[in-house]
Amino acid sequence: MLRLPRIPAWLPLLLLPLGAASTATAATEPAATAAPAAKAGITRIDPTFWWVGMKNPALQLLVYGPGIGQSTASIEGTYPGVTLTGQQKLENPNYLLVDLRIEPSAKVGKLPLAFTGGPKKLRYQYELRARTTPGDKSKVQGINSADFIYFLMPDRFANGNPKNDVVKGTRAPRVARDSMYARHGGDLQGIEQHFDYLKELGATAIWCTPVTENDMPKASYHGYALTDYYAVDSRYGSNEDYVRFVQRAHQQGLKVIHDVVLNHMGSYNYLYLDQPAKNWFHQWPQFTRSNFRDAAFNDPYASQYDRRQFGEGWFDTTMPDPDQANPQVATYLIQNFLWWVEYTGLDGYRIDTYSYSDRGFLMKWGEAILGEYPQLGMFGETWVQGPAQQAYFARNVLPAVDGFKSNLPGVTDFQLQYAINDALTKDPGWTEGISRIYYTLQADWLYEDPLRNVVFLDNHDVSRFLSVVGEDYQKYKMGLAWLLTTRGIPQLYYGTEILMKNFSNPDGKVREDFPGGFPGDKQNAFTKAGRTEQQNAAFDYVSKLAQYRKTHPVLHTGKLTQFIPQDGVYTYFRYDAQGNTVLVMMNAAKEARKVDGARFAERTNGYASAVDVVTGAAVNDLKTFNIPAQTAWVLELKR
Amino acid sequence: MLRLPRIPAWLPLLLLPLGAASTATAATEPAATAAPAAKAGITRIDPTFWWVGMKNPALQLLVYGPGIGQSTASIEGTYPGVTLTGQQKLENPNYLLVDLRIEPSAKVGKLPLAFTGGPKKLRYQYELRARTTPGDKSKVQGINSADFIYFLMPDRFANGNPKNDVVKGTRAPRVARDSMYARHGGDLQGIEQHFDYLKELGATAIWCTPVTENDMPKASYHGYALTDYYAVDSRYGSNEDYVRFVQRAHQQGLKVIHDVVLNHMGSYNYLYLDQPAKNWFHQWPQFTRSNFRDAAFNDPYASQYDRRQFGEGWFDTTMPDPDQANPQVATYLIQNFLWWVEYTGLDGYRIDTYSYSDRGFLMKWGEAILGEYPQLGMFGETWVQGPAQQAYFARNVLPAVDGFKSNLPGVTDFQLQYAINDALTKDPGWTEGISRIYYTLQADWLYEDPLRNVVFLDNHDVSRFLSVVGEDYQKYKMGLAWLLTTRGIPQLYYGTEILMKNFSNPDGKVREDFPGGFPGDKQNAFTKAGRTEQQNAAFDYVSKLAQYRKTHPVLHTGKLTQFIPQDGVYTYFRYDAQGNTVLVMMNAAKEARKVDGARFAERTNGYASAVDVVTGAAVNDLKTFNIPAQTAWVLELKR
Repeated sequence: MLRLPRIPAWLPLLLLPLGAASTATAATEPAATAAPAAKAGITRIDPTFWWVGMKNPALQLLVYGPGIGQSTASIEGTYPGVTLTGQQKLENPNYLLVDLRIEPSAKVGKLPLAFTGGPKKLRYQYELRARTTPGDKSKVQGINSADFIYFLMPDRFANGNPKNDVVKGTRAPRVARDSMYARHGGDLQGIEQHFDYLKELGATAIWCTPVTENDMPKASYHGYALTDYYAVDSRYGSNEDYVRFVQRAHQQGLKVIHDVVLNHMGSYNYLYLDQPAKNWFHQWPQFTRSNFRDAAFNDPYASQYDRRQFGEGWFDTTMPDPDQANPQVATYLIQNFLWWVEYTGLDGYRIDTYSYSDRGFLMKWGEAILGEYPQLGMFGETWVQGPAQQAYFARNVLPAVDGFKSNLPGVTDFQLQYAINDALTKDPGWTEGISRIYYTLQADWLYEDPLRNVVFLDNHDVSRFLSVVGEDYQKYKMGLAWLLTTRGIPQLYYGTEILMKNFSNPDGKVREDFPGGFPGDKQNAFTKAGRTEQQNAAFDYVSKLAQYRKTHPVLHTGKLTQFIPQDGVYTYFRYDAQGNTVLVMMNAAKEARKVDGARFAERTNGYASAVDVVTGAAVNDLKTFNIPAQTAWVLELKR
Repeated sequence: MLRLPRIPAWLPLLLLPLGAASTATAATEPAATAAPAAKAGITRIDPTFWWVGMKNPALQLLVYGPGIGQSTASIEGTYPGVTLTGQQKLENPNYLLVDLRIEPSAKVGKLPLAFTGGPKKLRYQYELRARTTPGDKSKVQGINSADFIYFLMPDRFANGNPKNDVVKGTRAPRVARDSMYARHGGDLQGIEQHFDYLKELGATAIWCTPVTENDMPKASYHGYALTDYYAVDSRYGSNEDYVRFVQRAHQQGLKVIHDVVLNHMGSYNYLYLDQPAKNWFHQWPQFTRSNFRDAAFNDPYASQYDRRQFGEGWFDTTMPDPDQANPQVATYLIQNFLWWVEYTGLDGYRIDTYSYSDRGFLMKWGEAILGEYPQLGMFGETWVQGPAQQAYFARNVLPAVDGFKSNLPGVTDFQLQYAINDALTKDPGWTEGISRIYYTLQADWLYEDPLRNVVFLDNHDVSRFLSVVGEDYQKYKMGLAWLLTTRGIPQLYYGTEILMKNFSNPDGKVREDFPGGFPGDKQNAFTKAGRTEQQNAAFDYVSKLAQYRKTHPVLHTGKLTQFIPQDGVYTYFRYDAQGNTVLVMMNAAKEARKVDGARFAERTNGYASAVDVVTGAAVNDLKTFNIPAQTAWVLELKR
């Protein structure tokens, strides 16, 4: 049998229930059902509003309305500091692109736009706001290795407002908690209600799967099929709710990471249902899926066929692929993701399917976003093979290949995820098992700054860590100890701390509801009393290490020294110039090991003893370590 | 059980028979047996002679003789174009370093050196020769992707001169063909006698394990324990024999690759037995072996402990580790490897254990050798993990790490060797099995020029390819077809063409004698009549492809396009601007596959049919390919 390719686990989930359903045809033909009303008027303008004082004074409005393309735009009267610099008709008469130049001195207020020459004159008061992010340190804080990210799916975490479970007019008018593909009712309010829980755990940042509107008929809960770039999904809350969510999170010392999809959108996005122009999308004579091989992106030997299919093939039948090489599309996407930062003050972007986008666009997008918000946290999904390939998609020491030079600060560190999986499931060998962590970190010389990488044990697309390690609690603790002490920004997938399990295939049960988050739940794992004894042990273990990490910068930015694994034992140190040193020893062998500490002298000299960070136990001998089988120690050295 | 580390297979072989033998103590104490006679005189001067007109006019002579350090060197009278620019005493009074400057105008002849101030005045006529390599195109031809390298062990290939099997005064005074560790009697003459065989096979270059003197008491046959940098091992022939060997090879259209050991020497080398100074060697309080982890070389997190043990630890108890960071040692080694090129006209260097040497020295050595002989072929042994790490040791697109930037043109492509092994022994998967070839080649963007890499199926340190593929002749043919058509310089390990087999562990039987090369052999596989039917089939298969390759530059320097493997089928093309295109299709699946040729249109457009290069069969349909299970096709496209 051929093995299953490494494609996102939720892809088959999306496909499974579709059968011959209408969305399957969306690939080649827009569904007619959602076509805009033919009545003249302005349906919307994107960006929905803007700010005075952005670094780039140019703004391109996408005006949408039946027949608007026949009109000519103008500013009525004069408006201080704003000029209309150009306009373009598109293939589709329902669109008009209007270019503005907004001087730093421009007036905050409503810009009166007029559209004349069409069947009737139209007016639109376009809002120009005052910026709020500059000078406000509570906004756009960035993400760094001092953080501990809690990654959750809003639909599956907690239902704080049952009134928005089903929203009239949406295409999935039901909640079905017994189906992995349906909405379950979680929302922003549900997350807010558990900020205390996240703080108790030691998290400092929340990453939600996309909160943006996914008004799809099926399997929309995951959020990666955007139907409106400018709206929060109504089942999670309103746009204003999201702004408040970010504010409240910040007040609680929690940062917010927004999940960004650049590569595709949902087939019910208005931009696809009524396409501005054919060249806004990668069009195929018949539905053509991406080959999911980022390798073709920079393979010097790639066929044009493979390379095109990778970048221009669709991610799924329900996910049209915008052509980001089209400057109009690029501008639309860049403005949208400037908009979300300025609008909400969010702290970081996680960029989905990073490598699938147009290479020129990726550089332009990154430059624009970081040009405006240099402090913004950014990491991209790089579900790729090999350290060099992963580093290629981050800021690195490598030259441009075919004109592509990534400006992305960090990536989701899949190479280390493969490594920790192997470390705990395969026998230690020269390069296998625990040695894979050693070798993977060794390749960090390829990065500009590997501390910006996001390290994780699992996520929504792969089997849950506890299941991967065979529900072995000892191995579970080893994984967590490593996650919270190695270099980078640790990320925990929701529920790992209460021992949630399951495999990604075949049923996708890695996205189950957090117990206690939903009305009627029998168990409430958000509280100590509601957790089982084993769950409390796990929660306490994670929390203990996370709280320790939070207050010990040596684990954020301290240097790392790793020793070559020997007999299944892998030892490393984090240390800083202030004399703080943490020793981590992982014994992946099935037997206890006696480890000669003499080898570590360069890091232990000057220290007399140590304290076990988790148990508080004293370790009075740094010369010999007797470490039990399948155990990780985190020891703070003492003088 | 822990798996065996990836260390050279012959290392345990070396150790096995030693036990408590005297050489084991050589690690810390020079064996007393070979100490030089105490009688005053000049025992030797290295380099043993030199040339007028080398690009670098400086020459440093290492003068060796009892008490010579008490003397002062001078040129007697005047010698046109040569000045003595300096001299240095060493810790050991038996050495004197003398620095000369040899102008391009210097006289060819005997330079009269005098040594005065010691117990008695000494004289030495140091020979300065006229260079022969410049302007002689038959010399120093270089190695490139037009070549097909035949790699053999001189002791095990053919015994052309039984008179030199045992040479009086050497430390291993016997031949024992029933022992894998003893000398078997092969020699240069034996190889020369089979130049025709190599030509019939299609080889264009010969790489022998080191022919330099290995006057060790045990296991000296492999050649990696040099005891005299300036002498051919007397069991193979004399220095003059080697010069003639290179000449005759060149006359036959065969290039010669010389195997170079920079990292270590044999413990019976005179330089170790009577060390010029303690700082010529990495000294340890007790024998310390290298950890064999090149990863420590450039690990940003490496401990000083691991890094030092890697670079300064000894390769074996019988292999002292010279300190190449000592400029005297560096100069000695650089001059030696200039000497061999100029002396013999050899075409290329294969550098053993490349990554184990001092990083500064490696750059200096490469610069010096290629500065003098830019056309020289050079490739280093890089038995490392991962494409990035391998590329790090070659000329690459990477920046310097810790000041090291390799100037080595090519490497032994272990990553592709792992890949072809997996391709033929593991089920095809997204990244596994045949996909590993795809992914490994994809990483070629890391190299300055991957065509300079040497591609191989096996060598003297690993299990023989036929055994690795389970003695499956179909898989064997797939491997050979790939070897001779993929990018790079193919290398065949002797005997592969006649189906020699065996595993490297536990008994090292991958270095058995070539049948027919030794007096009394029952079989003579050098002749068609002497080979079995199956051996002839294999020989003819290799020969057919090698001869085709030899005459078809498209397989040397043609571009490569590879297609993503599908259902176990991997397809690639070599093509050039002259309209030549070769299609290679490998079906690694256990079932026959029907392959839609439409995907290959960018490479097959303009062609109507093809010819199977091996069988001559016509292929009249390029639209659909029905390829049997576990089969490789090499097809020349026709218009």
